[in-house]
Amino acid sequence: MKVGVLTGGGDCPGLNAVIRSVVRKGIQEYDFDFVGVRDGWLGALEGRIVPLDISSVRGILPRGGTILGSSRTNPLKHDDGVQRIQDNLAAHGVDALVVIGGEDTLGVATELSRQGVNLVGVPKTIDNDVSATDFTFGFDTAVGIATEAIDRLHTTAESHMRTLVVEVMGRHSGWIALHAGVAGGANVILIPERPFDIDQVCELVKSRFRINYAPIVVAAEGAVPKEGELFLRDRTLDEYGHVRLSGIGEWLAQEISRRTGKDARTTVLGHIQRGGTPSALDRWLATRFGLHAIDAVKDGDYGKMVALHATEIVRVPLADATARTKKVDPSLYDEFEVFFG
Amino acid sequence: MKVGVLTGGGDCPGLNAVIRSVVRKGIQEYDFDFVGVRDGWLGALEGRIVPLDISSVRGILPRGGTILGSSRTNPLKHDDGVQRIQDNLAAHGVDALVVIGGEDTLGVATELSRQGVNLVGVPKTIDNDVSATDFTFGFDTAVGIATEAIDRLHTTAESHMRTLVVEVMGRHSGWIALHAGVAGGANVILIPERPFDIDQVCELVKSRFRINYAPIVVAAEGAVPKEGELFLRDRTLDEYGHVRLSGIGEWLAQEISRRTGKDARTTVLGHIQRGGTPSALDRWLATRFGLHAIDAVKDGDYGKMVALHATEIVRVPLADATARTKKVDPSLYDEFEVFFG
Amino acid sequence: MKVGVLTGGGDCPGLNAVIRSVVRKGIQEYDFDFVGVRDGWLGALEGRIVPLDISSVRGILPRGGTILGSSRTNPLKHDDGVQRIQDNLAAHGVDALVVIGGEDTLGVATELSRQGVNLVGVPKTIDNDVSATDFTFGFDTAVGIATEAIDRLHTTAESHMRTLVVEVMGRHSGWIALHAGVAGGANVILIPERPFDIDQVCELVKSRFRINYAPIVVAAEGAVPKEGELFLRDRTLDEYGHVRLSGIGEWLAQEISRRTGKDARTTVLGHIQRGGTPSALDRWLATRFGLHAIDAVKDGDYGKMVALHATEIVRVPLADATARTKKVDPSLYDEFEVFFG
Amino acid sequence: MKVGVLTGGGDCPGLNAVIRSVVRKGIQEYDFDFVGVRDGWLGALEGRIVPLDISSVRGILPRGGTILGSSRTNPLKHDDGVQRIQDNLAAHGVDALVVIGGEDTLGVATELSRQGVNLVGVPKTIDNDVSATDFTFGFDTAVGIATEAIDRLHTTAESHMRTLVVEVMGRHSGWIALHAGVAGGANVILIPERPFDIDQVCELVKSRFRINYAPIVVAAEGAVPKEGELFLRDRTLDEYGHVRLSGIGEWLAQEISRRTGKDARTTVLGHIQRGGTPSALDRWLATRFGLHAIDAVKDGDYGKMVALHATEIVRVPLADATARTKKVDPSLYDEFEVFFG
Repeated sequence: MKVGVLTGGGDCPGLNAVIRSVVRKGIQEYDFDFVGVRDGWLGALEGRIVPLDISSVRGILPRGGTILGSSRTNPLKHDDGVQRIQDNLAAHGVDALVVIGGEDTLGVATELSRQGVNLVGVPKTIDNDVSATDFTFGFDTAVGIATEAIDRLHTTAESHMRTLVVEVMGRHSGWIALHAGVAGGANVILIPERPFDIDQVCELVKSRFRINYAPIVVAAEGAVPKEGELFLRDRTLDEYGHVRLSGIGEWLAQEISRRTGKDARTTVLGHIQRGGTPSALDRWLATRFGLHAIDAVKDGDYGKMVALHATEIVRVPLADATARTKKVDPSLYDEFEVFFG
Repeated sequence: MKVGVLTGGGDCPGLNAVIRSVVRKGIQEYDFDFVGVRDGWLGALEGRIVPLDISSVRGILPRGGTILGSSRTNPLKHDDGVQRIQDNLAAHGVDALVVIGGEDTLGVATELSRQGVNLVGVPKTIDNDVSATDFTFGFDTAVGIATEAIDRLHTTAESHMRTLVVEVMGRHSGWIALHAGVAGGANVILIPERPFDIDQVCELVKSRFRINYAPIVVAAEGAVPKEGELFLRDRTLDEYGHVRLSGIGEWLAQEISRRTGKDARTTVLGHIQRGGTPSALDRWLATRFGLHAIDAVKDGDYGKMVALHATEIVRVPLADATARTKKVDPSLYDEFEVFFG
Repeated sequence: MKVGVLTGGGDCPGLNAVIRSVVRKGIQEYDFDFVGVRDGWLGALEGRIVPLDISSVRGILPRGGTILGSSRTNPLKHDDGVQRIQDNLAAHGVDALVVIGGEDTLGVATELSRQGVNLVGVPKTIDNDVSATDFTFGFDTAVGIATEAIDRLHTTAESHMRTLVVEVMGRHSGWIALHAGVAGGANVILIPERPFDIDQVCELVKSRFRINYAPIVVAAEGAVPKEGELFLRDRTLDEYGHVRLSGIGEWLAQEISRRTGKDARTTVLGHIQRGGTPSALDRWLATRFGLHAIDAVKDGDYGKMVALHATEIVRVPLADATARTKKVDPSLYDEFEVFFG
Repeated sequence: MKVGVLTGGGDCPGLNAVIRSVVRKGIQEYDFDFVGVRDGWLGALEGRIVPLDISSVRGILPRGGTILGSSRTNPLKHDDGVQRIQDNLAAHGVDALVVIGGEDTLGVATELSRQGVNLVGVPKTIDNDVSATDFTFGFDTAVGIATEAIDRLHTTAESHMRTLVVEVMGRHSGWIALHAGVAGGANVILIPERPFDIDQVCELVKSRFRINYAPIVVAAEGAVPKEGELFLRDRTLDEYGHVRLSGIGEWLAQEISRRTGKDARTTVLGHIQRGGTPSALDRWLATRFGLHAIDAVKDGDYGKMVALHATEIVRVPLADATARTKKVDPSLYDEFEVFFG
């Protein structure tokens, strides 16, 4: 049995932990052979197949990124994409794939599975927006980094009695913003799921100043004002049709500064949220996902994704996971209303 | 409505986050009054009741420890303990209690509730051994600290090709040892639930040296050798009848050193696992527990404990939570066998 | 003897540590009385004088920011500024001031000292650009945060083979960029002292890709291209006549992306570099500065600044410290040339 | 020109950073060849010579430990030790050595240099006790880890009003204990340079409880009570004749507990102080030491050690560095007296 391992989409702390546990258990327990597919679906299209054995995965548990490389290539947008992938796998004698990716990568996997490719999915995204699993690895690390940043901003904000805005990742969902905002004691949390009213934001900011504290505003990069005001500087589409936004943090600082008459500054955390060593929880989750994914391969239980349900790892149909993005529930957001302002 | 808040047992990162959210929501949303009961059940026995308002809880979200103090006093072991508590609460006009504690503190709460005290429990323990909840806050912080320590030990172990032993908390359950050991890539993980064979431990250590890596051994403080060998230096009983062990880490280093002929050293993490700022996840969980606990008080739904089930906060009977300690399941431990040695 | 303590300019990790050691030693050893002057020179102008005793400074050693508040107000730009300050100090019976600040704040202190105000200066700036002292506190913390960010960016950059740009603080000097860039293993380090050639930057970026590594570019916010190209979006002047720049990080990512044909992204660390708990080194240095500053007050040795020379704390004339900004020496920058590209 | 690189003694964060900069500059700028001598003087004795080139040092800057391994072997204690080393170096055509080590390793280097071996020394020790340099790399990392531990202990100590003892590294000097104790706000700091009176320690502990704070006691592992009381469990001598002590932390907790009647607990940080990624400052210092060491080799300036004087890297005679251990000056210790108790 020869198994290929592929990582796709934005990188995420914990990818290497999955690769390690898939390979360790596959070789030590099931005597499988392994190859790596480099650079996500791009490598599958182009036949970038590399050797993968136990020595390849030594020492990678605590390392961020992915030793296999990644890309955002969508093979379904390329001529004969699916056929080329099938041919490349066949040429290397690959019997099954473990596909580690987010919504987009797993969406492709769902289609490939329908067309007969033997594969098992592992959900990965710092955004936590994959359905059918309680959490994805990478998310806890990202929230931890964003929370530590907010912790740091409190003292400097108080010293100068200014507003500090933190822009965190989350183009389509506000999970990082909500978790980090709550954990960091932010006074305003803006998420894509709930378009905001800039006047109301400024009211919350001012109410904070009135009790002699300085406000911290956390904004997901995909947060948008209700009025759809023209703040976006960049609008590029990737191969999956996703808009890449930028600039909400800076726009907010300018507007808050202008409207409240008090200085406001922005921090854009960017890629430090997805780089570096995974948190202990993400390593635990990634390791377990890997162990269960290779079990599914062993069982020939293809077309499934491993998922976290409470404290158990289960298998769910890939199609369930990729049918829709997991959004922040309004009732969850409202739970924290007492802390806003 | 006047509500008392009490924290009992060993302190735990996130206690202050619970206190804050209980008080913020209780005052801002329900217009309750609050008092703090100092030093756990000891303060309840002795009437150490202090004012508690919104200004008391400003800025405490990221702080470790508990602003209310704690103790391991068991009022059921004291003459008229229950009556004295009831009298003290009545004297201060306290209508209901929010009791934040682990197995022991909540066990007392269960008994008090049976005897008519209006109270709601919040589970707290870095050990994660409270039943009826997926996780307790404090645990993630402790695992994170232990994992970071293991990360650091790998490089120094490799440089000298010696064994490094880490003793982590866990007198009755191995949750911290297992999670940190898996996340840190330990080669041997020893937990109270599974008495170990020192010869087998040394075999794993030697097999690690044979592939030119240095072994890391993680031991819960309550881990015991199968033979019950005489390694314990201290044996003191607290008021709940719990043995306080010490010395397993050092004993292991000595035995491994003697039996393998290679140097072995120990780190005893001790209280750094329970001190300091809570992780983002623990703050999130503690905050939500607090919000739901005060909701239960508002509903008059006493005798319950708030608990995490998957991603939801639910209410469970206190008696369910304290009936037995939550142990590490053997099948979960075995899941990671491929990484041992 | 009544001593006033004032913190001015941008806040900086370690300010509270200075305040604590000044007050602890002043009261416990010399039996002085203390008051705090709030919000830097603004508070001195407006007579914002508050009580300051040992209980005020309990627990503040590890806290970022300043319990006294700060401002960038320049009293020399205000009518009768110096006279108003002298009147306010006299009105509160303040015999001497400890002034903790950077270039601007200490520049004012130098002038006030010339006009007869009894004061001792303590150098503070995360930028490390105060002359006559080897280092200032706050700098080590800022470098540590920036270095950790660079560490995180390496793995995500490699996974996608893209360039990552980090914009760090440093309007007039490149100390943070140089130290963090060297410590983080950056491939390009851009500092205000040395205008850069964007073509050469892109060459270094491309040479990195050629050996299959992804480039990390560290840019001080005050770094400027040789040609003086028009990348600046904001240009505001503060009361000290300093330009506030912004946008170099984003401009670099856009240019690198356009010129190399490969994706480039930016992280703007902003105020997280100056917030939060000080590093151990900064606490050590700030504590010693405070102890020596109050000794200077005790000795009546006014018009001096405490400074670090090797491992000793010495006193230097304030005028020496504020005569000119301490720049990165070209020979120091060139020392690291072997790592660029 | 062929240069050998050797790391000896206890490992230390920053060793890899030195190796990297020595090799990078030696190859890229001077066109030297390199070999690694494995496992310190042991490898020199036994001819464990391995290839070392630029690919060997990629990515090692942030890694703890040493890719070359280390040992505490003293070749001067072995028959024909010096001759065997000279023969091995000659056999591999090694023209000069860069020796990275602490007091012991550099002591051997001093002797070898006297006997005609071409070598340059780089001072390394987390203990900071090498003379003729302001600081050694590794020290800042160790102090940072110990300080973070103390920070964590404050909140848990306060919650239970107990004493917490932290045992830190430092067999012969108290640099780590003093720096971390001051930075962490400890109430008692015990160092080898100043034998302590246990009664006085308990007085300080009690005075802390009297103002309702919980005491933190930091003890270097080599701290000893004045009376020379019998607390030592282990006494082993290494090849350099150094005693390896253990147990002061635990002994202190027992004595304090017994004498004050209040609970006291111990944390033994052990090897986590020397493992893991170096701090930004240690990477900076290690990198510069490496660059200057290879310059000295280039200049044929043998028998020297690179050293930090203020902000400059200079060369000093090896014999000056190893003549005596650098101790904590009594006047420096006394500087912080105001914080004790």
